[in-house]
Amino acid sequence: MPINFKISAQCPQTAARRGELKTSRGTVQTPAFMPVGTGGTVKAITVDELKEIGVGLILSNCYHLFLRPGVEIIARHGGLHSFMNWPGSILTDSGGFQVFSLGGMRKLSDDGVSFTSHIDGSTHFLSPERVARLQNVIGSDIAMVLDQCPPYPCSHEEVKVAVDRTTIWARRARQAHLRENQALFAIIQGGVYNDLRRQSASELVDLEFDGYAIGGLSVGEPKELMYETLHYTVPELPVEKVHYLMGVGSPDALLEGVKYGIDIFDCVLPTRIARNGRVMTSGGYMSIRNSIYATDLSPLDEACSCPVCQSYSRAYIRHLFNAGEILGLRLTTYHNLYYLEQLMKEIRSALSENRFEEYYRIMSPRLGKLYGGVV
Amino acid sequence: MPINFKISAQCPQTAARRGELKTSRGTVQTPAFMPVGTGGTVKAITVDELKEIGVGLILSNCYHLFLRPGVEIIARHGGLHSFMNWPGSILTDSGGFQVFSLGGMRKLSDDGVSFTSHIDGSTHFLSPERVARLQNVIGSDIAMVLDQCPPYPCSHEEVKVAVDRTTIWARRARQAHLRENQALFAIIQGGVYNDLRRQSASELVDLEFDGYAIGGLSVGEPKELMYETLHYTVPELPVEKVHYLMGVGSPDALLEGVKYGIDIFDCVLPTRIARNGRVMTSGGYMSIRNSIYATDLSPLDEACSCPVCQSYSRAYIRHLFNAGEILGLRLTTYHNLYYLEQLMKEIRSALSENRFEEYYRIMSPRLGKLYGGVV
Repeated sequence: MPINFKISAQCPQTAARRGELKTSRGTVQTPAFMPVGTGGTVKAITVDELKEIGVGLILSNCYHLFLRPGVEIIARHGGLHSFMNWPGSILTDSGGFQVFSLGGMRKLSDDGVSFTSHIDGSTHFLSPERVARLQNVIGSDIAMVLDQCPPYPCSHEEVKVAVDRTTIWARRARQAHLRENQALFAIIQGGVYNDLRRQSASELVDLEFDGYAIGGLSVGEPKELMYETLHYTVPELPVEKVHYLMGVGSPDALLEGVKYGIDIFDCVLPTRIARNGRVMTSGGYMSIRNSIYATDLSPLDEACSCPVCQSYSRAYIRHLFNAGEILGLRLTTYHNLYYLEQLMKEIRSALSENRFEEYYRIMSPRLGKLYGGVV
Repeated sequence: MPINFKISAQCPQTAARRGELKTSRGTVQTPAFMPVGTGGTVKAITVDELKEIGVGLILSNCYHLFLRPGVEIIARHGGLHSFMNWPGSILTDSGGFQVFSLGGMRKLSDDGVSFTSHIDGSTHFLSPERVARLQNVIGSDIAMVLDQCPPYPCSHEEVKVAVDRTTIWARRARQAHLRENQALFAIIQGGVYNDLRRQSASELVDLEFDGYAIGGLSVGEPKELMYETLHYTVPELPVEKVHYLMGVGSPDALLEGVKYGIDIFDCVLPTRIARNGRVMTSGGYMSIRNSIYATDLSPLDEACSCPVCQSYSRAYIRHLFNAGEILGLRLTTYHNLYYLEQLMKEIRSALSENRFEEYYRIMSPRLGKLYGGVV
């Protein structure tokens, strides 16, 4: 078995569960948030800092690595872990989401998708088989099938086409996938349509994957609609397999996702907003560029025990952003990843200690108020 | 005494010396290279990384800090050390070099210099007294007097004016300087004119400063002319005081400077070129963006024991630069500072072990060949 997933505690009142995901690289405590290292690095952060923060599993992207630097040079390093010097676990997304975000720059058929590179305008063709094999070469611990991710909003008819194709592609990916020490996860599509989510889940579960992702959410729909979709989709997945909610990283949505039975999450949110000077704190989002912080000697977050909050003032970090200093976005990136890791740690403790429902009752309205608005 | 400088070994054949510079923050082994943290951060690097590399003394800049974020907020943090979280020693340059680089944007008189900010176009006036007091507030361990730094080339007549004014300003700075636990260094000017260097040194030495810098070099003159100037200027300085060569950081010039009796150096070179993907190696400069490194699995420098060279390939670092990833310039910056720190360590060992002349005989032609050209 390429991965081993064990549920160690189940919340009696909700679908939330505490687990351990073992890969050949180590054990990841779930529920877990995966920082995103699209191009073979989590932006602005070193692998040592990720370890220090407590991260054990990161996400990278087959599509981006395929375009740059190309999988051949990664293979010559012995795989992505060695290329980027990351001893922990890696999940690679297929690039389905990225390709379908290209809009007019791609052409879709049952065979696969041809598209124009956003980097140099070169043309490429990716099929479910090719994406599976590319990930075999990249050597991530968990690979994702190529899926068709419809936008939001999208008609029932169009989403149905995407669901049907995603199933066919998943079957083909399953057959093409050759690496025994690499897990393969399917991606449930179906937009916000109950019947299509059920169809997608049922068809993909029949194909027996190592884990199941819920894709096509967090693409612009209201959060309530995302939660409703999770409410009826997650129960369609095998209890004993990993449940992965793609593209979610805001603190309130992480907590809600856990309640619906999600085990792993990924999102560029914490690192992307950090580079714009936006941090997550116990008081909600804070834009450190704001002039009110020019003379503020307190840390980003009084309640945070990360090294950034132990060592630097808001005034200093604001100065760094003001002066265009790279250290500024290093510090905010570190803080945001630490903040989310701490949140997941708290959630895991609540689950382990059989008090998740109580934790949820207190934290859900609080996080909803702080982070529920538009990012 | 704000600082204590002790010479522990003197090369019998050259003017090179091994020393220890004690400030209230610690002891700096000399000869030493100071990384430049103009705006309160050494660009792209954390203070923990500086410590890890072995740096004990950095340079910051009164002029830059005065304009942004302003000295008041630094004072409210208890000084620059606390503002930037740096426990080591700090030398602040006066800004003389920066102000005189402004060209048409400044107006010079015997009183001082009025200039327009390069940041927001606001107008300011700096006098020798004000610059001394600003540095008192910033709280660096070593402050520099405001000087007038002529360009190269420059007529004897014009350099003479700068020398005369620099002496007058140094006297005024000396009187205005009030911080007892902060050393004050004078800056010898005189361009490449022997008589003017002697005049400047003689006048400033008479004023009894805690240390002496040689300014107005490394401003575009041929390296040979810089060495010649050092050759006749350094002997004019008190042996027992710190000798500081400003703006020098290329490996060959560091070694030559040591030979002429220089104790400390600063330069933006290693950090600035790093951000452009240029690194210093045992084989000379290397531009990591070059496509020949696209498939190169070796480290930046096989002979280097820094963590970057222990962990990352040229192909990976090139990929990072290619993809615009911040990690790329973090790694090259770290490597370059480590490289120079190692060079200075080697030089110090050679001096301690009474074999500097031999070391110099081997390394001077080698470094000259590798680094002697235009940067």
